[in-house]
Amino acid sequence: MSRAIVVALGTELTRGIIKDSNCHVISRELTHLGVHVSSFIAIPDDGTLGKVLETAKDEFDIIVITGGLGPTEDDLTRTLIAESAGVPLVRNEEAFAHLVERLGKRANGANEKQAYIPEGFSLIKNGNGTAPGFYGKLSRAMLFVLPGPPREMEPMLYDSVLVKVRRLLDIPEVERDEYASLITAEARLEELCEKVGRNLSWATRFQDFRISLYVSGGSKEERDEAIAALRAEVGRYRILNGDESALTVLSSYMKEHGLTLAVAESCTGGLLSSELTSLAGASEFYKGSVTSYATTVKKAVLGVDDDVVRNFSVVSRECAIQMAEGVGRLMDSSYAVSVTGVAGPQEQDGRKVGTVCLGFYGKGRPSEAVELCFTSWGRESIRRRASVAAMILLYAFARGESAVEVASTWRNI
Amino acid sequence: MSRAIVVALGTELTRGIIKDSNCHVISRELTHLGVHVSSFIAIPDDGTLGKVLETAKDEFDIIVITGGLGPTEDDLTRTLIAESAGVPLVRNEEAFAHLVERLGKRANGANEKQAYIPEGFSLIKNGNGTAPGFYGKLSRAMLFVLPGPPREMEPMLYDSVLVKVRRLLDIPEVERDEYASLITAEARLEELCEKVGRNLSWATRFQDFRISLYVSGGSKEERDEAIAALRAEVGRYRILNGDESALTVLSSYMKEHGLTLAVAESCTGGLLSSELTSLAGASEFYKGSVTSYATTVKKAVLGVDDDVVRNFSVVSRECAIQMAEGVGRLMDSSYAVSVTGVAGPQEQDGRKVGTVCLGFYGKGRPSEAVELCFTSWGRESIRRRASVAAMILLYAFARGESAVEVASTWRNI
Repeated sequence: MSRAIVVALGTELTRGIIKDSNCHVISRELTHLGVHVSSFIAIPDDGTLGKVLETAKDEFDIIVITGGLGPTEDDLTRTLIAESAGVPLVRNEEAFAHLVERLGKRANGANEKQAYIPEGFSLIKNGNGTAPGFYGKLSRAMLFVLPGPPREMEPMLYDSVLVKVRRLLDIPEVERDEYASLITAEARLEELCEKVGRNLSWATRFQDFRISLYVSGGSKEERDEAIAALRAEVGRYRILNGDESALTVLSSYMKEHGLTLAVAESCTGGLLSSELTSLAGASEFYKGSVTSYATTVKKAVLGVDDDVVRNFSVVSRECAIQMAEGVGRLMDSSYAVSVTGVAGPQEQDGRKVGTVCLGFYGKGRPSEAVELCFTSWGRESIRRRASVAAMILLYAFARGESAVEVASTWRNI
Repeated sequence: MSRAIVVALGTELTRGIIKDSNCHVISRELTHLGVHVSSFIAIPDDGTLGKVLETAKDEFDIIVITGGLGPTEDDLTRTLIAESAGVPLVRNEEAFAHLVERLGKRANGANEKQAYIPEGFSLIKNGNGTAPGFYGKLSRAMLFVLPGPPREMEPMLYDSVLVKVRRLLDIPEVERDEYASLITAEARLEELCEKVGRNLSWATRFQDFRISLYVSGGSKEERDEAIAALRAEVGRYRILNGDESALTVLSSYMKEHGLTLAVAESCTGGLLSSELTSLAGASEFYKGSVTSYATTVKKAVLGVDDDVVRNFSVVSRECAIQMAEGVGRLMDSSYAVSVTGVAGPQEQDGRKVGTVCLGFYGKGRPSEAVELCFTSWGRESIRRRASVAAMILLYAFARGESAVEVASTWRNI
């Protein structure tokens, strides 16, 4: 098995001013390729790199360095690598042309340094910044050097470094299927993946409103069977094909079918509406929302009946239906969804923390409501899972399904 | 200057499954104490630690290790440290009593291992988990070992490790003043801090809706002068005393004075309302919100006039005032605030990205509106800064100030 070390350079890292995320991403991706990442290390821009390279170049097959390529004086990276390789720094004309393109005349100042790379090394182009990367042989190891800012580093990692590593190690293109998992906790999802596909290789990535799920290994058939089994464990619409979010699935559908949406929120307090408008272009389908945090607002603005509040409380399917219908009519939308529940930390009206009711309204269709009981991992998590549940069940509902039926298949929420 | 190394243990780190944040926090706090953190490193639970300790114990004054203290078989940490120190592992009775307290009879199973620490080392109690930490001398270095989960590690770091390091290095208690900065970008804030107090020591910490700001060094007078100069650079209400957020400042004030609040949003799409309800207890003052994303909703629900939309567009002070007044009356609140603007990426009605108008309504007071022009660092950032501006200007307004006057002092937004 090939062995790698990842090095993040920057005094602002070891002083705790900036938080490194590059090591995590690079380690994850190298691991996916079957490389054993022996360690990742953060060191200051102070010359320590020379010492690290001295032992690393004979111990590892792959060395990836990020950071320390800026034009300021404390960026010694280039010099230390050239010294370690025993070659001079030479101006790379392609890199310089790229600098001129980005900076014009300023390319001749302090920035010119960025166009110098160790002799015999090859350029890795940077589409999002001035500092190019480079790679080449350093004793036993193949060394890759990338800039520190993630938005510059990441495209270079995916488009260049990983491709070269794969070629270098003669790794066949790994077949990897991408999914997204909704609502299930990451730890529970990992347990379930292990259960349904012990011989497959699973990777998850937490992304606020979904967990990206990657499965590789085995045959396509085995992977499909495992995903089908996973779907059975969590219920319908909870594992999306491709690394999609509930938001993109719902909003594409609404736009494509010329539908409009309105929202009524209580315990989510605006979070669902905020998520629905987080991507540009939301105005094509989204009309707006009412956050009825106070009961008086539920009644006065959304038209929830006194009787409903008295007999069923505001956390009830009955209230959820009236909220959805109320906001749908108020904003004259084709569909509407509502959320009312107990985000905690205290229980409310005898309903325990994590109880959430969702209402679904569609013009000319009977309304529906479901009651869900989320495991309580805190207020923010309940609000987030409730928002995702509202989006994905509304998507099912808008496609003509019964939200009640879909939700009845749900487990592990 | 004392030198330290921070080691994070866990195969799930180097495989990129879990993202480490401990190294960052520990490095930052040690740096604050004046310790030079030479590097932080993540290594698998595979015995590599032994090799790292072999050189580290003679090279560093302080070694902090996190992780690898669980009851499962792959947690070799204790054994490797005991070997490196040349002492046996012995059962610590205080640690075992703590285990029994947390686990009852289960303390005798695989978990019992967690009560063993190297002979001669001292216990660091874990208030949030079963794995205790410990510390002791390892050759030249003082070694601290803490569990990996941040909610267990952090209290142990602050309450025990940092106190001991300070004593060890004979560091006097540093006087440090805490503030929070609103709306200014972190990079710009750092420039301004450097400008107003070059001889002081500044630290910032980005926290979604604010930046925590710590200043130390110099005399109290010098620090106060620098903060006054910083306030002059950004404008009133932008640097809060103590590490407070606009949210806590506003909500404490509303609760204390028995005031109620309603919100009308457009470009922020629910984000302001979501933030206002993110802490428990919001129902004491928060009535609710209308997200009027569509112009029809601004008119039909909030009562914005056709004429205003036609003559001034929806991104105007005139529209903002009508939105605030509309929602205040609709929800019968004592105060209301509105946000309408261009979050991008495209400009709208000839208004450029980052233009945001805020409206302020108070029962029995003339309404006000301000127009702000945020530097464009993307949709999410504009939405966030607009939400913070709405909260802090409403706070000023509710205290009887003119929002227009306060906003007129603002720069660097």
